[in-house]
Amino acid sequence: MNPTASSTQTFRAIDVIRKKRDAGELSRGEIKSLVNAYTNGDIPDYQVSAWLMAVVLRGMTRVETAALTDAMLRSGEVLDLSSLHAKKVDKHSTGGVGDKTSLVLAPLAAAAGVAVPMISGRGLGHTGGTLDKLEAIPGFNVNLSVKQFRRVLETCGCAMIGQTAEIAPADRKLYALRDVTGTVESPHLICASIMSKKLAEGIDALVLDVKTGSGAFMKNEKDAAFLAELMVETGERMGKKVVALITDMDQPLGNMIGNSLEVVEAVEILRGRGPDDLRLLCLELAGWMLHLGGIAGTVAEGKKQSEELIASGKAFDKFRRMVELQGGDPRTIDDPKKLPQAERTMTLSSPKSGYIAYLQCELVGTACVILGGGRERKEDSVDPAVGIVLHKKVGDAVSTGEPLATIYYNSEERAERSRQLLEQSYQIADSLPHGKSPLIHRVIGGVIEESGEKN
Amino acid sequence: MNPTASSTQTFRAIDVIRKKRDAGELSRGEIKSLVNAYTNGDIPDYQVSAWLMAVVLRGMTRVETAALTDAMLRSGEVLDLSSLHAKKVDKHSTGGVGDKTSLVLAPLAAAAGVAVPMISGRGLGHTGGTLDKLEAIPGFNVNLSVKQFRRVLETCGCAMIGQTAEIAPADRKLYALRDVTGTVESPHLICASIMSKKLAEGIDALVLDVKTGSGAFMKNEKDAAFLAELMVETGERMGKKVVALITDMDQPLGNMIGNSLEVVEAVEILRGRGPDDLRLLCLELAGWMLHLGGIAGTVAEGKKQSEELIASGKAFDKFRRMVELQGGDPRTIDDPKKLPQAERTMTLSSPKSGYIAYLQCELVGTACVILGGGRERKEDSVDPAVGIVLHKKVGDAVSTGEPLATIYYNSEERAERSRQLLEQSYQIADSLPHGKSPLIHRVIGGVIEESGEKN
Repeated sequence: MNPTASSTQTFRAIDVIRKKRDAGELSRGEIKSLVNAYTNGDIPDYQVSAWLMAVVLRGMTRVETAALTDAMLRSGEVLDLSSLHAKKVDKHSTGGVGDKTSLVLAPLAAAAGVAVPMISGRGLGHTGGTLDKLEAIPGFNVNLSVKQFRRVLETCGCAMIGQTAEIAPADRKLYALRDVTGTVESPHLICASIMSKKLAEGIDALVLDVKTGSGAFMKNEKDAAFLAELMVETGERMGKKVVALITDMDQPLGNMIGNSLEVVEAVEILRGRGPDDLRLLCLELAGWMLHLGGIAGTVAEGKKQSEELIASGKAFDKFRRMVELQGGDPRTIDDPKKLPQAERTMTLSSPKSGYIAYLQCELVGTACVILGGGRERKEDSVDPAVGIVLHKKVGDAVSTGEPLATIYYNSEERAERSRQLLEQSYQIADSLPHGKSPLIHRVIGGVIEESGEKN
Repeated sequence: MNPTASSTQTFRAIDVIRKKRDAGELSRGEIKSLVNAYTNGDIPDYQVSAWLMAVVLRGMTRVETAALTDAMLRSGEVLDLSSLHAKKVDKHSTGGVGDKTSLVLAPLAAAAGVAVPMISGRGLGHTGGTLDKLEAIPGFNVNLSVKQFRRVLETCGCAMIGQTAEIAPADRKLYALRDVTGTVESPHLICASIMSKKLAEGIDALVLDVKTGSGAFMKNEKDAAFLAELMVETGERMGKKVVALITDMDQPLGNMIGNSLEVVEAVEILRGRGPDDLRLLCLELAGWMLHLGGIAGTVAEGKKQSEELIASGKAFDKFRRMVELQGGDPRTIDDPKKLPQAERTMTLSSPKSGYIAYLQCELVGTACVILGGGRERKEDSVDPAVGIVLHKKVGDAVSTGEPLATIYYNSEERAERSRQLLEQSYQIADSLPHGKSPLIHRVIGGVIEESGEKN
């Protein structure tokens, strides 16, 4: 550590740290200098981590948050997709359990005529990640170059990859530092991290799915709404159409959790089947994507179009085509039994009769991670075959001995740990609970200025 | 940066960072583990700087502050001075302008029969440092080994050195990190830094001189009192007798600022001369040192003894002896004209008649730093000869053209910059100001339990 590391430059990191420590508002220039200097290696981790902690505890104004997002976005390449005639629309979820909507939405929206250049992440903590799910499809390559990504996008209207080195390198570096310095939990930093990556995709519009509940990072709706407003405003400041749906993650979405299993369930939806909650949320999000993408005059119209694209098989065909273009084996989509299968299964039966009153969602997510479906440590590899199928969800009636869930596993020891968590996560009451959380709690933003129309 | 740096140990730095971020109270064990792991290089700077910022913004309880002080103290050697029969008493000042009391107090208290094992610092910002002042005496060596330090202490009852590598290494490492991460300004961290070093000296009692006013780090009395109470309580928790005097630093102490000049003024006091404010503060602090050291039954008695030791020449002789034992040339003490002298002088005259209403103390300190009397950057060397002599202080009457101050300098360019600051620092009013700050604002602690006596 060199104590004079930054004292000889005109920009002094220490001044920016002190200003934020004392609850001051940083200028656009100060934020830009800090982000650029850090990305270039000109200021050390220990100064940036002190600044990050000051941001966590002092907060940021909306203007500062937009400036941070902008600086992070411009730290790398911003994709120029202007050669594509279609509007570019993406969807982003803040993460949950059993959330496989991206696998449905990218081909569905593409089938309707918007382009979906989707850059996703891996599983984090108890939540799953789109990249891990895609990689359950044998051969599927999420590590495309920008050139390959563009080619897939031009060919079939959607493409799904992981973050490349060129996209928002500041976010990559800051995220790694936040992860080890207790500075993840700041809505301002979360907003800048998400929005910088999404806006670097060169999109016109963005649909945000901000999860709330026991399986979300934002456990209560107030925090979720604060983050949602911040992201909507930040996106709008940058000239994008943005809407955020606060949606329920108090229990897993759909019935299947685990990478192969979630591909199976996404295919079910694309084939017009599958569980209601998942289908309804996919249609709602797709409706917004088509509406913001200018394909549908209203969200309702967008939902209707989406239903038709599923019924006609066009959405499924689009998914199959994308899988093929990204190196995946399309026969596993035609016949999901060809996806990786766990060796054994174990059934969790109900110890009593009654109704499912509560399903602790984070525990269910962790139960899947423990099976090998997610990572306990960063360096762990993921087992695509394992997972959990829920037979009963909140509000369902159950009799003694009736199956609550099935565990798909490859290790007895892991299955046993997983089963214990799953058992803990179910609460069975004698009478029907007085009501479960709505699927969609609230819609924030999404106003299209031309018409003033919202839904 | 290795993101899993500390995740494989049983102690996880990230947990301690998060707990403090969320305003939790850390356990003694958590604090000890953090300090030890950092001192040993087992956790990286970037985690500790995030923790430091959380401490700055969340604060610490008294118990946490004592635990931090204890952990830092025990990170290195604690001097065992039990072979000395005399009580070991030290004095520490939080730093000011023209504060040369240490040079008077160490020999004065030693002459009375307490042992003074004083470990001091260098100039910081606009304030002077005892080590820089001592080094103005040709040959004086502040870098004694612990063995040499003990020998001087045994021979003459006082010794004055800089922090060694063995004493509180955690503080050395933490201080360097705080300095570059905007985490200096926390009373809890300041307390732990000061008290860990002082208590490592193996002392029985400590007199703290906590400065307040325009030339102090704590500009207002409330902040100074908070820090003072924290240090007194921390010392008392560790079984030491501690008193803190909140004293005035709204204008420089004494008339001379600069390293050689301050040695001159300290010698004046030891010879029974010198300015009133400096003499009064030295006697008050010495009174407390003798009282806490068990030499005087009351502070008043301690002051009386100190006056006698000055009048008899014994205090001066002790200083001369210490200088000699630490390699300094005692002839420069006998005849201070032999100390380093600046080549030129310049007089600042009063532009008008009236009374000195205000003397911006930090500016006066900076005016001396600019001459070369302190460091603008850490790597700068100090010029012992330069400095400022004030002819007028707050409340003094002044006529147009009468000298306000004399600048002792070796560089015209620096002298000019210094003169401008000095000019700005004086405010002259038409009428006598309604009162100046008292020299001693408040006394905190210092209760000796055996007698309950305080003054």
